[in-house]
Amino acid sequence: MVQYKLYYFNGRGRAEVIRLIFAVAGVEYEDIRISGEDWPKHKASMPLGQMPVLEMDGMKLCQSQAICRLLTNKFGLVGDSDMDKYWCDMFIDMLDDMSKKFPFTEKDEEKKKELLKVFLNVTTPEALLKMEKFYLENNNGEESFLVGKLSAADLVFVTFFDFLVPMKEDILTGVPKLAALYKRIREVPNIKAWISKRPETAF
Amino acid sequence: MVQYKLYYFNGRGRAEVIRLIFAVAGVEYEDIRISGEDWPKHKASMPLGQMPVLEMDGMKLCQSQAICRLLTNKFGLVGDSDMDKYWCDMFIDMLDDMSKKFPFTEKDEEKKKELLKVFLNVTTPEALLKMEKFYLENNNGEESFLVGKLSAADLVFVTFFDFLVPMKEDILTGVPKLAALYKRIREVPNIKAWISKRPETAF
Repeated sequence: MVQYKLYYFNGRGRAEVIRLIFAVAGVEYEDIRISGEDWPKHKASMPLGQMPVLEMDGMKLCQSQAICRLLTNKFGLVGDSDMDKYWCDMFIDMLDDMSKKFPFTEKDEEKKKELLKVFLNVTTPEALLKMEKFYLENNNGEESFLVGKLSAADLVFVTFFDFLVPMKEDILTGVPKLAALYKRIREVPNIKAWISKRPETAF
Repeated sequence: MVQYKLYYFNGRGRAEVIRLIFAVAGVEYEDIRISGEDWPKHKASMPLGQMPVLEMDGMKLCQSQAICRLLTNKFGLVGDSDMDKYWCDMFIDMLDDMSKKFPFTEKDEEKKKELLKVFLNVTTPEALLKMEKFYLENNNGEESFLVGKLSAADLVFVTFFDFLVPMKEDILTGVPKLAALYKRIREVPNIKAWISKRPETAF
């Protein structure tokens, strides 16, 4: 059995999709959380001096997206057909485009507030309308996941909105099918169990 | 036979990796280049109102990275083993991180010049040192591609440096093995043929 250790800060951030993959697959791993205070001691031991890092039988792997893909390929969370795989990637790219517009790096507090308002009330809702359209075109009816069966795209989706919903509770109101999807993903037993036991962190 | 049409502006930009994939695979496609002037007429017919778009037997697909992955999976350009696939993704993520630091959006010309200087002389050379280290650890010797056989990672690599080398000819000097790799990729017969015949554009 492969021994997995995941290194990250005590937050969801860029590690949470990896944790959800393990949860869904029901695979054991060590969830190692390094405090900001201790990080300088560990930095040099990480391949790119950053986290998350996944240690797999002693080999340290970096780059969260490449790690996710390695695991989702292994655990069958990428869609079955070539086209399902494409749609899974497409939704992830769309979510990535949305998240890139979050004003993470803006230092001026007033400006950040303004940008955040636009992000939560305009940019993201507009992108979500397009996403819902693709979702409906790809699935006959709403009782499914983004590409039919549960995939990496759903895990990226739920992680992104676990971050945004606390900032704007009704952010999914304009897209009722995606709002239902959000709930549906959080009700998947292994995901529900992980959400209920994971450490509470701000992001 | 699948009919492919690729829609993009008359530039390499986000479409060139897709064109290189077709070149390497030796697969025919229509390389449709839309002028900036004509773009407003076409925008509404693109799924996300942006390009590149790949039309596959009449179905229009968007998001360049998802398109690349669909094609590289199809044409066997992703590495053979799970770990080769991981390394292929890892190198692409590293290159993506590098390119994200390019000051594309800076509007102040003086500031942009300064940022570009740092990008070309500090940020990118530092990242390249790490990349070369991974490359050497993964390949015994230098006479190979990023993950052994030619893969998507090499196509992203060559496209990125086809963009940067004209700005700083010696950008790969500090990483001689990657400099040799850059030449090696450009000498792959199908790639060499495409480079020699592709329309000359600024980027």
